[in-house]
Amino acid sequence: MKISFKKNDLVNAINIASKAVASKTTMPILECILIEADEDGVSFTANDMELGINTRIKASDCNIIEGGKTAVEARLFFDIIRKISSDDSSEIVLSKKDSIIEISCDNSLFKIQERDADQFPVLDLISDEKYISISQFTLRELIKDTIFSISSNDSNKMMTGELFEVKGDNLKVVSLDGHRISIRNTSLRDSYESVSVIIPGKTLNEIQKIIPGDADKDVTICFSQNSVLFRFDDTVMISRLIDGEFFRIDNMIRPDFDTRVVINKKELLDSIERSTILVRESDKRPLIFNIEDSSLELRMSTVIGSMDDRLLMRKEGKDLMIGFNPRFLMDALRAIDDEEVSLYMTNAKSPLIIRDEKDSYVYLILPVNFNAYSY
Amino acid sequence: MKISFKKNDLVNAINIASKAVASKTTMPILECILIEADEDGVSFTANDMELGINTRIKASDCNIIEGGKTAVEARLFFDIIRKISSDDSSEIVLSKKDSIIEISCDNSLFKIQERDADQFPVLDLISDEKYISISQFTLRELIKDTIFSISSNDSNKMMTGELFEVKGDNLKVVSLDGHRISIRNTSLRDSYESVSVIIPGKTLNEIQKIIPGDADKDVTICFSQNSVLFRFDDTVMISRLIDGEFFRIDNMIRPDFDTRVVINKKELLDSIERSTILVRESDKRPLIFNIEDSSLELRMSTVIGSMDDRLLMRKEGKDLMIGFNPRFLMDALRAIDDEEVSLYMTNAKSPLIIRDEKDSYVYLILPVNFNAYSY
Repeated sequence: MKISFKKNDLVNAINIASKAVASKTTMPILECILIEADEDGVSFTANDMELGINTRIKASDCNIIEGGKTAVEARLFFDIIRKISSDDSSEIVLSKKDSIIEISCDNSLFKIQERDADQFPVLDLISDEKYISISQFTLRELIKDTIFSISSNDSNKMMTGELFEVKGDNLKVVSLDGHRISIRNTSLRDSYESVSVIIPGKTLNEIQKIIPGDADKDVTICFSQNSVLFRFDDTVMISRLIDGEFFRIDNMIRPDFDTRVVINKKELLDSIERSTILVRESDKRPLIFNIEDSSLELRMSTVIGSMDDRLLMRKEGKDLMIGFNPRFLMDALRAIDDEEVSLYMTNAKSPLIIRDEKDSYVYLILPVNFNAYSY
Repeated sequence: MKISFKKNDLVNAINIASKAVASKTTMPILECILIEADEDGVSFTANDMELGINTRIKASDCNIIEGGKTAVEARLFFDIIRKISSDDSSEIVLSKKDSIIEISCDNSLFKIQERDADQFPVLDLISDEKYISISQFTLRELIKDTIFSISSNDSNKMMTGELFEVKGDNLKVVSLDGHRISIRNTSLRDSYESVSVIIPGKTLNEIQKIIPGDADKDVTICFSQNSVLFRFDDTVMISRLIDGEFFRIDNMIRPDFDTRVVINKKELLDSIERSTILVRESDKRPLIFNIEDSSLELRMSTVIGSMDDRLLMRKEGKDLMIGFNPRFLMDALRAIDDEEVSLYMTNAKSPLIIRDEKDSYVYLILPVNFNAYSY
């Protein structure tokens, strides 16, 4: 095997593939990247058994002097490629002699041991039964604006992933962790067959990192019984799905309310962020919203001190005093781009819902009990 | 007490003073900032008993409605000041009622408990016996370019500080850790009385962070028997000195050599950095310089793999093979701004010296033993 690449192309390819390299594993081969060169180009594959990525450099973008395949320890290989030259347009030559991999560039030569490529687990590429197309930019935004409310606790597997539900030309993405629900709806350019799957949070986190995010380039997402495949540019990413039926959330998101507050998003977010200065790990106190007439009063009181902010707002319906975990409010508000947001509430025991008119976003947050007399 | 400030001024002052706030202490008052307001302005003081900082906001830059003094928990106070408004030009009002500190800005009000200002240890400002003046920029550079070779190990206290030696119009700064010595010489604008003191590394690290670094503004450094005082802008920083006489290093820095190498600094540094990819904590192998004719060969060989780089250079004197800890070379080369550097060596057991002709910098690095047969 002997191939010469532009440094930049090689760095990009390994950067993408390395997202599926296992970090803690009892199988050392999963810490490797499989490199295969034939007349079509060079392919780079990583697979941690949950998530697999394959990306290619086309034959026209490199010089394949001799085909072949090998496996190399991913982190070490990546470090060498990045540092072997400070010039991104340098030519890097990768070759194999016996079982030694040589990486050379300008006047620098590295030699490392190859790993056994035949041990590398084959990526199980599914057939493209059902699929949708969506812009790279939109997919990345959908994930970013919902991923924060998945649960990191494995005790309920379903909460560690997100629902992707296709109905006609609508894609709905939902995550929830028992304290809150995040929903995003987006219109697709075409209508598709209905799909409802739960994609692991880890997969979504990784794809969010490697999608270039161009608004005018697409990702094709293919669904099969047990797995989902993302195809974009020269890359394919495949992941297992989480088994089971997702939580029924439709009757939790109710359209009726007793209090509606319309308020400047940035002012509200700044004030909530300030309140957390007074919160220490050991002393989690709720943030109180006191909604009266035309002002929203935010109060936080802990052993450290107290905060009392007053924000202007527009109100419909009843006055209300209600308490929240400030971090949940911050996560939702940070995901919203609108200048003004509408908060819908019923009473101090019922969830707060932040939504826009088209339901392009719906964030539900459960309130926290508090002792009204101490405020 | 009641004072109103521009947010920006208050943030700057607390940022400076907080560098002397104790982080781990059994005396809670040392975690505080002392705030004193009188007709001249407002002063902010912190003191961890090794290092003290006092900085002022002049009366003309704030509005002192009522004088007084208080102590507040530094970290909490700083967090509140930074987040109470997103606008740096906002007015922040600080006031004290009974023992409650109120901090208000726009529609936000924080209340925190004051601490007992009378417990705060007084800063012991020395009289200005001997002193020098130096530009803020030069002092910051001198520290940055030598601080990396102080020792973090307290077993030899002297190695945890730096020698500051004034002779006539020359200031010499020296640090050493048993494996290497870093020396910087700089010309002062005037001649001063001779001084030789050892300033703790922690002090130098902190002053480096808070000096604005203007080339056209000065720092006055005053020396007394046991302490050193830095005065710049509206700030005074005072620190204890390390007792004792510094190591005699003059006869270690010898002018004779058997091999001199002149080489491009960036190429050399890049190559040394690359070699460390192959070094793991558990397996510290030396970097070998093989100096032959017109090329410097750099070799690193570990359990992970091998590197072999060849750099062009100009040589005077004998060929030589010599081994180093690559990190020590990297630290020294990163501190040098020159495009080309000169390396002076004698044999594989004697130190390498990197110096320029004026001795504005001198870096000495001890070599490491290696088994020539394995290379």
